[in-house]
Amino acid sequence: MNKLDYISKQFSKAQHKKYEHYVVTRIWHLLNDLSLKFVTQQYISRPDGRAMTDMFFPQLKLHIEVDEGYHKKDKQIEWDKLREIDIINITNHEILRVDVTKDIKDVNLRINEIVNIIKEKKQNVDNFSEWDIDYEQNPHKYIDKGSINIDDDCSFKNMIDAVSCFGRKYKGIWRGGVNHPKEDNKFIWFPKLYKNKGWNNTISNDENIIIEIKLENPQEHILNVLNNKSNIQRIVFSHVKSPLGDTMYRYKGLYKLDKDETSIDKGLVWKRIESTSKTYQYLD
Amino acid sequence: MNKLDYISKQFSKAQHKKYEHYVVTRIWHLLNDLSLKFVTQQYISRPDGRAMTDMFFPQLKLHIEVDEGYHKKDKQIEWDKLREIDIINITNHEILRVDVTKDIKDVNLRINEIVNIIKEKKQNVDNFSEWDIDYEQNPHKYIDKGSINIDDDCSFKNMIDAVSCFGRKYKGIWRGGVNHPKEDNKFIWFPKLYKNKGWNNTISNDENIIIEIKLENPQEHILNVLNNKSNIQRIVFSHVKSPLGDTMYRYKGLYKLDKDETSIDKGLVWKRIESTSKTYQYLD
Repeated sequence: MNKLDYISKQFSKAQHKKYEHYVVTRIWHLLNDLSLKFVTQQYISRPDGRAMTDMFFPQLKLHIEVDEGYHKKDKQIEWDKLREIDIINITNHEILRVDVTKDIKDVNLRINEIVNIIKEKKQNVDNFSEWDIDYEQNPHKYIDKGSINIDDDCSFKNMIDAVSCFGRKYKGIWRGGVNHPKEDNKFIWFPKLYKNKGWNNTISNDENIIIEIKLENPQEHILNVLNNKSNIQRIVFSHVKSPLGDTMYRYKGLYKLDKDETSIDKGLVWKRIESTSKTYQYLD
Repeated sequence: MNKLDYISKQFSKAQHKKYEHYVVTRIWHLLNDLSLKFVTQQYISRPDGRAMTDMFFPQLKLHIEVDEGYHKKDKQIEWDKLREIDIINITNHEILRVDVTKDIKDVNLRINEIVNIIKEKKQNVDNFSEWDIDYEQNPHKYIDKGSINIDDDCSFKNMIDAVSCFGRKYKGIWRGGVNHPKEDNKFIWFPKLYKNKGWNNTISNDENIIIEIKLENPQEHILNVLNNKSNIQRIVFSHVKSPLGDTMYRYKGLYKLDKDETSIDKGLVWKRIESTSKTYQYLD
């Protein structure tokens, strides 16, 4: 996909609110900067729950909200139908609002302000990395950088690409994951973090805790994991649907089994212990 | 409707072609001029037939076409389903094209060029009249100006407003038209220029000829019109659906009955003899 394709698709999606479209296209065109990526209708999680923002700039951790006033309540998001969706945690992100109940001239002035804020924020990002649409889902981006961090907006189109960041290029991966090719006692895991065939997994809103529950023979599965030392720490890429509808594997960090919290009733409890994972060059 | 509403609705409509949306919103936001009106997906007629343009600036008689290349043929417009639609004649209009098969940077450069052409054209319009969304469908706009011209992009929401331009404010109009309140031998006519209940009227692509055919007792109707001197010239406002779906009465000029061409076989033949009509102040 090229940038014109990507941007056009993102624009088409921005139809949730009456004036969302106007605001999103105006910010983008006036910003006029192809080095910045944006996503419309990004699902987010924060300590107080899940929601959606109208425009998201991942490199800047900045969101835009089109504010239609209190009398028009947001369409209730049906989370059950969206359980596969890519949800990102926005702790430490900033949200800017555009009040569209005002006159068009005031809306335009506010958008000018926002465009200036975005330009300024870009200047102040440490090691700003340009939006490279061909490179952003390429393992070499992270291999070259030496690590993956949860702030990198890192997601891959397939499991092979994800595992390739850790020192080995597989031909195929047919299970929920593989052992880390370079580091002992670590597993690279691709869970569905929602109820699905055979499993009832969940992730907390702050994304620090994953609960893993196998529906059939849960006790046996828990004992297997507890007894398998190489499986006690997991680099997690959650299986999600992207905003454009394709499957992605999003990096969520390194999680460690909390043996004290784990029980038959509760399931396996995984706690995030690192937000960064070291990457490794692989030999072809 | 305010301008933010109008523009948002026009943007939403611009989804016919894959990149139409991107081009239309970018031209509009970079132009950044609330004195210019635009219409997306404007149906047009020209000597070689009917078509649709992607963005139309009525004050400048300028159209933008998003050009997806020859291999992707335009979706065939189903004219039968659109017979009520507002079609404007574009003789003497200019069409600018944006080739969207190129890289986004080239598309953006072309849009910059177009934005500059639009700005220049605006400077060169004689007696440029700012887009006034409250005033544009108000009879006083034309009464104050002293006339209506087919280049004025003049359409009214109801027949009363149209007739009010000619010296009398009616309370209601329930027929296809009324006699001109100020000028003898003229009728103000609101025809449906397509096949409809009782009639099979048409207008030529250049809009110079209207054929009027009554389906029941056509001969009697023709004789009635021929014998009615006050009905031999007609100021025409055609009944159309606007691009946003509401009914409008669009000014088409002054037409005169061509008695030589008129026949039972052919119907009543009306030829345009003036593109301008004088307006009159009315007394409340």
